[in-house]
Amino acid sequence: METKSSSVTLLHNALIVTMDSETRVFYNGAIVVEKDRIIALGQSHNIFNQFAPLAQNVFDLHGQILLPGFINTHVHTSQQLGRGIADDVDLMTWLHERIWPYESNMTEEDSYISTLLCGIELIHSGVTCFAEAGGQHVSEMARAVELLGLRACLVQSTMDSGQGLPPSWADRTTDDCIQSQKELYEKHHDTADGRIRIWLGIRQIMNATDRLLLKTRDVAKELKTGIHMHVAEISYENQVVKDTRKVDNGTVTYLEKIDLLNGNLLAAHTVWVNDTEIGFLSRAGVKVSHCPASAMRMLGFAPIKEMLDAGICVSLGTDGAPSNNRMSIVDDMYLASLINKGREVYKLGTTDPTALPAETILKMATINGAKTVLWENEIGSLEIGKKADMIIINPFSWSMAPVHDWYEPILLEM
Amino acid sequence: METKSSSVTLLHNALIVTMDSETRVFYNGAIVVEKDRIIALGQSHNIFNQFAPLAQNVFDLHGQILLPGFINTHVHTSQQLGRGIADDVDLMTWLHERIWPYESNMTEEDSYISTLLCGIELIHSGVTCFAEAGGQHVSEMARAVELLGLRACLVQSTMDSGQGLPPSWADRTTDDCIQSQKELYEKHHDTADGRIRIWLGIRQIMNATDRLLLKTRDVAKELKTGIHMHVAEISYENQVVKDTRKVDNGTVTYLEKIDLLNGNLLAAHTVWVNDTEIGFLSRAGVKVSHCPASAMRMLGFAPIKEMLDAGICVSLGTDGAPSNNRMSIVDDMYLASLINKGREVYKLGTTDPTALPAETILKMATINGAKTVLWENEIGSLEIGKKADMIIINPFSWSMAPVHDWYEPILLEM
Repeated sequence: METKSSSVTLLHNALIVTMDSETRVFYNGAIVVEKDRIIALGQSHNIFNQFAPLAQNVFDLHGQILLPGFINTHVHTSQQLGRGIADDVDLMTWLHERIWPYESNMTEEDSYISTLLCGIELIHSGVTCFAEAGGQHVSEMARAVELLGLRACLVQSTMDSGQGLPPSWADRTTDDCIQSQKELYEKHHDTADGRIRIWLGIRQIMNATDRLLLKTRDVAKELKTGIHMHVAEISYENQVVKDTRKVDNGTVTYLEKIDLLNGNLLAAHTVWVNDTEIGFLSRAGVKVSHCPASAMRMLGFAPIKEMLDAGICVSLGTDGAPSNNRMSIVDDMYLASLINKGREVYKLGTTDPTALPAETILKMATINGAKTVLWENEIGSLEIGKKADMIIINPFSWSMAPVHDWYEPILLEM
Repeated sequence: METKSSSVTLLHNALIVTMDSETRVFYNGAIVVEKDRIIALGQSHNIFNQFAPLAQNVFDLHGQILLPGFINTHVHTSQQLGRGIADDVDLMTWLHERIWPYESNMTEEDSYISTLLCGIELIHSGVTCFAEAGGQHVSEMARAVELLGLRACLVQSTMDSGQGLPPSWADRTTDDCIQSQKELYEKHHDTADGRIRIWLGIRQIMNATDRLLLKTRDVAKELKTGIHMHVAEISYENQVVKDTRKVDNGTVTYLEKIDLLNGNLLAAHTVWVNDTEIGFLSRAGVKVSHCPASAMRMLGFAPIKEMLDAGICVSLGTDGAPSNNRMSIVDDMYLASLINKGREVYKLGTTDPTALPAETILKMATINGAKTVLWENEIGSLEIGKKADMIIINPFSWSMAPVHDWYEPILLEM
């Protein structure tokens, strides 16, 4: 008689959407997890016969849908307590008069509670990994993430110059900014059983000296980690860059010039980019986080279809609570699907209902998300050897019925 | 000692958003309902002292938010079972190849189940009244609505000509169309304790003869009821109208010409209208149902801000499940807020975060909805003498916290 192992779990009778390179789907599938890794998956009957004798825990999913956990590639967890403080105002008012005063007055405890509360909402919408977009108290974020059981790339909000900074931030030198991030890296990188990684942050180009940009580029290379930066959010930003940095286009053109465009750059929003700049992003392998709710509120329509067509890895972010109100990646999947169909009306005279089909949106929220956070060797798809970051969706509730097409219910009706 | 009445209910300690003509809000309010009507409302302590001795049922709402029920002014309840059958396709394919074949093959029982299932989802998002956009089996819709406890303006989908009609619909004469609607009116109007009203339907101008349009106009006047029609959905529709009906603009211009624009017309979508046509709609008192999800998928950006600025009563609709997937009016409030901010980028070069602020969206879903369904004397706001169609929102859950501004949580986080 074979011995059952308590570290082996078998899930069977599931509709498994792997999101692997062949986008395989097992309509009656099973998956086996040992500790936190996937050790087998395939047709239910094969896997069941082989692994049921070994697995201590066997769950019949009764036809429910099993997916890789969603990855939210741009979220300010520290802003969760600021939900509703900056509705219906423009971006500069939003930043200078509402959000920065709020963020700069947060205590460490506030930050911990904010990340916890945000994490609960993220988990509720199926998120298992997120990229923090930048806050003040990274150690407290890390404490919350450890408790939440999520996976995260954490970033300190980093600014060393520019307008609108609250007094307590205004005297930070470039060296302070770099040094504190190096210390955070030493302290927290690869902690919480490997679930926490520390990245470098640049809040945005209008609040960064050239020295900060270049140092960040070099330190990220040295530490082999990523850089998370808000890029080309509003046309005003591009204008400021043109005026002060003497380039003929905006932020992306300048980042190309100083060699900051690389495969480890997570460019959030990236709304105001022209075709040449899309080419720069594509060639450099920059990852783009599309945040449709905050785009509609304050930024504009990012050329997502064009970026995807150019081979850019585009993923999805909720942004922070004061930019969106809802912290649900599924709502942003729904929004991304709709607004990118609607946007085409301005070019074509009609919407393009075939733009960003459901399968593309699902890729953006899973495997593209994993590539964006530089973690695709372990997450983003259900494959043997990867981490068992999985979610289960019940398609049999009144809000999902009937299921004619299994993609749409996942994306749009959760 | 006063006698308590079992038909009197007192709700107190609530944040009451009345949506009355002064948009009054009682931060610690109470409301008294006798049978199905509001007989008092105001500050909690006043109302409580006066009515607690009379009310059999007294509920402390502990600070929760009390609002008029939401009104969904464009929903195809018969399409609920077709959710997911027409994703990611253009409007003409959607209609001719997917939806009409589906609708024309529905049995009466299918229709009953579809309306029931849709109604459950509507109730879940706070809807207490809806305007049916048109289906086949109105008697079965009425049976479902009676059971659901909702209020509804029901409409038969009516077409007497044009391309793409399934065989079973193609031989209906204009007189058949009018006669069957008169019979439905006789049978169901003002039934279910007055919760059901019967309107006349025109599916869309490309499937209506002039005789049907004019007969509908006259019979609606005679019956003192409303007309529900899809208007100017796609630019192709306007082109067809220009070509076949010899007017220099599209559908709205033609409806003006034949005197169909009146206060009893509910024009759904109304996406492709120019400034002159907005003037026509405004002067005639036509009501517009904005359905942001289906607009983004298949139609385009309706000039909602311009219509509101022109004094047009604009309300909100979910449209049917195959156009939206989600049948939540709250999701459409969220969408309407976001896409109408985003749309401004094409005129202004930036989004307008002040466009359609939360208060406007809330009006669209309540009092404007009531005006759209010609029922504002009884619903749409919390006022003495109106029906007690109310909803309660709990702002103390993790998805709402913290509440800095009481408008946004209602609209965006339910």
